[in-house]
Amino acid sequence: MSLVIVGSVAFDTIETPGDRKERIVGGSCTYSALAASFFTRPRIVAVVGEDFPKSTADFLKKRGVDLKGLTIVPGGKTFFWEGRYGDDPNQLDTLRVDLNVFLDFRPTLPASYRAPDILFLANISPDLQEHVLAQVKRPRLVAMDTIRYYIETQPEALDRVLRTVDIYFANDEEARLLTGERNLIRAGRRLLAFGPRLVVLKKGEHGALIFGPDFLFGIMARPCETVVDPTGAGDSFAGGFLGYLDRVGNLRAMSIRRAAVYGSVMASFAIEDFGIERFRSLKPDDVEARFAEFKKLVSF
Amino acid sequence: MSLVIVGSVAFDTIETPGDRKERIVGGSCTYSALAASFFTRPRIVAVVGEDFPKSTADFLKKRGVDLKGLTIVPGGKTFFWEGRYGDDPNQLDTLRVDLNVFLDFRPTLPASYRAPDILFLANISPDLQEHVLAQVKRPRLVAMDTIRYYIETQPEALDRVLRTVDIYFANDEEARLLTGERNLIRAGRRLLAFGPRLVVLKKGEHGALIFGPDFLFGIMARPCETVVDPTGAGDSFAGGFLGYLDRVGNLRAMSIRRAAVYGSVMASFAIEDFGIERFRSLKPDDVEARFAEFKKLVSF
Repeated sequence: MSLVIVGSVAFDTIETPGDRKERIVGGSCTYSALAASFFTRPRIVAVVGEDFPKSTADFLKKRGVDLKGLTIVPGGKTFFWEGRYGDDPNQLDTLRVDLNVFLDFRPTLPASYRAPDILFLANISPDLQEHVLAQVKRPRLVAMDTIRYYIETQPEALDRVLRTVDIYFANDEEARLLTGERNLIRAGRRLLAFGPRLVVLKKGEHGALIFGPDFLFGIMARPCETVVDPTGAGDSFAGGFLGYLDRVGNLRAMSIRRAAVYGSVMASFAIEDFGIERFRSLKPDDVEARFAEFKKLVSF
Repeated sequence: MSLVIVGSVAFDTIETPGDRKERIVGGSCTYSALAASFFTRPRIVAVVGEDFPKSTADFLKKRGVDLKGLTIVPGGKTFFWEGRYGDDPNQLDTLRVDLNVFLDFRPTLPASYRAPDILFLANISPDLQEHVLAQVKRPRLVAMDTIRYYIETQPEALDRVLRTVDIYFANDEEARLLTGERNLIRAGRRLLAFGPRLVVLKKGEHGALIFGPDFLFGIMARPCETVVDPTGAGDSFAGGFLGYLDRVGNLRAMSIRRAAVYGSVMASFAIEDFGIERFRSLKPDDVEARFAEFKKLVSF
């Protein structure tokens, strides 16, 4: 199997009630590729500037991430985002966004990327997602993510993408915004009418629900005493989810369920340190141990 | 085994965004006894006025609830509560409380109630809970509930009760208030230091967590598209939980886990209609079917 991820690679400046980190590496593609790398060898399509640290590229390679689709723009500056979390980790203010090289990003997939088994359109604009979809032979599975900004500014393009994908990773805010439904169960079900075969509704600290026409799976989030940095939790969830599916090579109901648990496990690691730091020390055995621990936690 | 429940029986006037019901029967004792009645034959200790409907007493008896400990005060009026829920079912304003016969309630347990296997001190004041504790031979299990009002007005008496009980049913607000911890995992663990062997932390639509010194169990809430009336969900949870434990007759870890699932199942029924209405049509088979459905929902 093979997994191609298209998304953002960024510098993030992150402020939490307890700490502040300047220009650490983040981005939807980075988090999801690293999480997926514990299950498969993801290929990424993204753009960075010349300021992007070689050490991070080396770390991604060491984790088995294929960087053939990573464009480095000579003289360019990497996408920059700054955000501040409140005492409640769900409360996030975006303080600054500099698109930089992302402004002119028109991803062109390397020839070897054009027939993936799984394609993940991470958080980029819906028109870029369409641009990517036009370059691939129909994969077995196309998954997508989006954000409030695109729901509000590019609803038509987003509608078109939603109609073509198999899995839509939504969070609670996005689900409510798209459907106008407050109740998340109704919102999740109604998202299926937008096109996807499966809707993965991520509820942060409250877990996730997966909706299909004849499918419902629910998972609580692993209890976490200390959230150091919630950034990238959703991307890590998607990366673990799709990486696991790529590894098992089938889309059976039980595989989808386990994929969600692995997604949740990867998110639970991501938030234990700033940025992608936790993935540096993480071992595959740690992932399996946490899966087993979670299974014990919820079994009855 | 035997289960004695001490708590309130009340008239509730309930307003939700869609509806309003005047003076329907409610109360912590009523909900928890009805939920428990699907597993065992609970005995209740409570007080009502002469205005309490005989039809409700008959219904409780039909469900196997022992009313020997229910005092009917001649000429008295039953405890009255009025509340209004917002669009978010977690948002509740208490509009009116008339204690009526509850004001002078000093529960005296019938002789046949004084050696229960399980004693549930539902939502009554901590000094009344102490008064009850003084009348029983040490049961195998004592569980308690309380509310914000008693945490704020009777902290010393509450502390004393917490030190003697085995299980404390707390909700998220109460856990945060008692411990000063925002993070619910830390709050739940810290509540153990108040005395109980187990803390059952109810998180409403987000499920529940059970903390013990060497025990942790988590359960999501059953996804619910329509919450008609959230009143009594927590009491029904506790009733189902303790009723199931009374039925199985042991306190093994797996029994505690299943008790929580049955508690959650009973709460999920309670909120499907106003007041105790849903329990009128509910059959034991419905309970088992929902347990099985939930098991399927969360299995992986």
